[in-house]
Amino acid sequence: MSTSRLEAFSDGVLAIIITVMVLELHVPEQDHFSDLWHDSGVGLLTYVLSFVYIGIYWNNHHHMFQIADYIDGSVLWANLHLLFWLSLYPFTTAWLDETKVALTPTIVYGVNLLAAAVAYYVLQLRMMRIPVTGPRLRDVVGNDLKGKLSPFIYLLGILLAFVEPWLGLIPFVVVALMWLVPDRRVERYLAAHQELTD
Amino acid sequence: MSTSRLEAFSDGVLAIIITVMVLELHVPEQDHFSDLWHDSGVGLLTYVLSFVYIGIYWNNHHHMFQIADYIDGSVLWANLHLLFWLSLYPFTTAWLDETKVALTPTIVYGVNLLAAAVAYYVLQLRMMRIPVTGPRLRDVVGNDLKGKLSPFIYLLGILLAFVEPWLGLIPFVVVALMWLVPDRRVERYLAAHQELTD
Amino acid sequence: MSTSRLEAFSDGVLAIIITVMVLELHVPEQDHFSDLWHDSGVGLLTYVLSFVYIGIYWNNHHHMFQIADYIDGSVLWANLHLLFWLSLYPFTTAWLDETKVALTPTIVYGVNLLAAAVAYYVLQLRMMRIPVTGPRLRDVVGNDLKGKLSPFIYLLGILLAFVEPWLGLIPFVVVALMWLVPDRRVERYLAAHQELTD
Amino acid sequence: MSTSRLEAFSDGVLAIIITVMVLELHVPEQDHFSDLWHDSGVGLLTYVLSFVYIGIYWNNHHHMFQIADYIDGSVLWANLHLLFWLSLYPFTTAWLDETKVALTPTIVYGVNLLAAAVAYYVLQLRMMRIPVTGPRLRDVVGNDLKGKLSPFIYLLGILLAFVEPWLGLIPFVVVALMWLVPDRRVERYLAAHQELTD
Repeated sequence: MSTSRLEAFSDGVLAIIITVMVLELHVPEQDHFSDLWHDSGVGLLTYVLSFVYIGIYWNNHHHMFQIADYIDGSVLWANLHLLFWLSLYPFTTAWLDETKVALTPTIVYGVNLLAAAVAYYVLQLRMMRIPVTGPRLRDVVGNDLKGKLSPFIYLLGILLAFVEPWLGLIPFVVVALMWLVPDRRVERYLAAHQELTD
Repeated sequence: MSTSRLEAFSDGVLAIIITVMVLELHVPEQDHFSDLWHDSGVGLLTYVLSFVYIGIYWNNHHHMFQIADYIDGSVLWANLHLLFWLSLYPFTTAWLDETKVALTPTIVYGVNLLAAAVAYYVLQLRMMRIPVTGPRLRDVVGNDLKGKLSPFIYLLGILLAFVEPWLGLIPFVVVALMWLVPDRRVERYLAAHQELTD
Repeated sequence: MSTSRLEAFSDGVLAIIITVMVLELHVPEQDHFSDLWHDSGVGLLTYVLSFVYIGIYWNNHHHMFQIADYIDGSVLWANLHLLFWLSLYPFTTAWLDETKVALTPTIVYGVNLLAAAVAYYVLQLRMMRIPVTGPRLRDVVGNDLKGKLSPFIYLLGILLAFVEPWLGLIPFVVVALMWLVPDRRVERYLAAHQELTD
Repeated sequence: MSTSRLEAFSDGVLAIIITVMVLELHVPEQDHFSDLWHDSGVGLLTYVLSFVYIGIYWNNHHHMFQIADYIDGSVLWANLHLLFWLSLYPFTTAWLDETKVALTPTIVYGVNLLAAAVAYYVLQLRMMRIPVTGPRLRDVVGNDLKGKLSPFIYLLGILLAFVEPWLGLIPFVVVALMWLVPDRRVERYLAAHQELTD
């Protein structure tokens, strides 16, 4: 089974998630800068965070499927499972925003980030079991330090939220920054195995 | 007529349906776990159910069109007909959610599931009448037990709803689970006829 | 300039238009069949009409660009112009729905349909002036009776709305039905010139 | 790394941005032409402006990536950065509309336009540093008069808004018109180097 339609569908879902979050932002009712900050400030900040997260997932997804040229049915469902958790971002982000980063919404947001990370990990495992693509992917991913570290940083954020909800967001920002640092593994691998690029 | 644009358009519509349903979820007004359960609990459960259904349709659609390499105008309309019923999922799911699974919304939801199943069946019939693709698809689909059974389970759900609306949802969950079980017919067929995959 | 990205973008926009209209539907506040009819009846009917219209445009767009293998910059803008008018369908449909088919909204809806038809005609004219694709398209379109008749039927609908708004919708339904009748011109042409299909 | 998925994702995001803006339009509560003007007039005008802007960005994006056949990881992020600013258009447009073009929202809208222009410029710079594509793109873009002029006209609009908010919109309209004038650089280049088109 080729990967093109799975990629197209995932691109569609991720493009929509990243874009509909903006519909959840409250347009300020008055017309001053202070209204923008007061009515939409938290919303804009959490929007940036979730936007970056979806961007990271798209980026990693793009890299992972670039290596694959063949998938099986279990990958389709592992992929939908990932998209499910990502599709909840607009919902958990909106709750975080509307309660101006209260305790429970921060925890729920962290759990959502965690669940998506686990789903991505499961998808990666499924991909690694595919005949030709698998070994190649295992080669590229290597020890996957970032992937293994992220869940623990999310847990740290969830714990910190009990001290002070705003504090809990810091580890979530740290994970995002960690992934934003360019990761040249796939590119390096493809450069070294040029016959894979067509 | 090639299938690529029909697939792209269907991917787009299904990606949007699966994603906009999250916009219909009510963000809790307070910030406790009990608010999440009380304001969004039913919504989240019905969201999961509809998400899985759209995922199943995308999956089956993907498999069916992988076999086809040629379609005619009637398939375009049969496909739009299917997309129409699927596009009502956000609406019927939201009603189910807002009335916390009352009788009529449960029936309407079941009728919507039923109509989509019939539309899929009609699309499959149209595809089976296409010269080269048809016989191939008939081969793959075989006796199509799941496809023939599903409408009856939907009907059972609609009937059970009259006893107690929540009961009616059980058969709908059963159908979803039945389809989630991997169906290797297409994959097996493609493996046996490798010349079809390029 | 190849047509693939224009087609992908148009598919995206049309897929979204056809799907977001469902978000404008009012979910009934109570849980009886009468509420469904009273709160959402007009909405569902106008939704079906607009869904069919967008479906027809997607269908015709798909056929037209299947013939083209080369476009120029003016086609990009003529295409965006068409998408602009189609993007207003959710807005004009929602107004029609919320006023339960009052006079002015019916006229505005008719003008929207008319503007989209003119925009499609302009796009077709631009396509006909492209070197290789043009003559081929002119061949396929022929006298384009439907295309020339539609604007007049829209005008009739707008005039009839002054008598009784609901009456004005009848010609709009007639145009939709007229286009739903399969139009085999492109398919016949492609069958006769098989070398075009790859 | 090939450009196809980046293009598909960007097409998706742009298609959604251009379409969801219509959801921010207020459907008039009454059913007269005066209601349409009063409730939705400003909204429709700002919608047209933002629609044209997104259309221009799609058009330029399309042209730029047509030249490229290879990208690196930094381009993925420069592209997401551009999409981020464009994704705020529905938000800033809605604020402009709801305050009927008040001072601060006009400034914020102008800053949004400016930020997107800068993001596009950064993306173009990144593309220009890619081995084969870079020199080619530099050739096509030339002195990029429009690209360099636009930010200054946006700044002029922001300044004029302090005199009278409505006045500030004029330079924004001027930039849009300036870009609408067909720009044949890419087409001319491709025609002269036909071997690039496949």
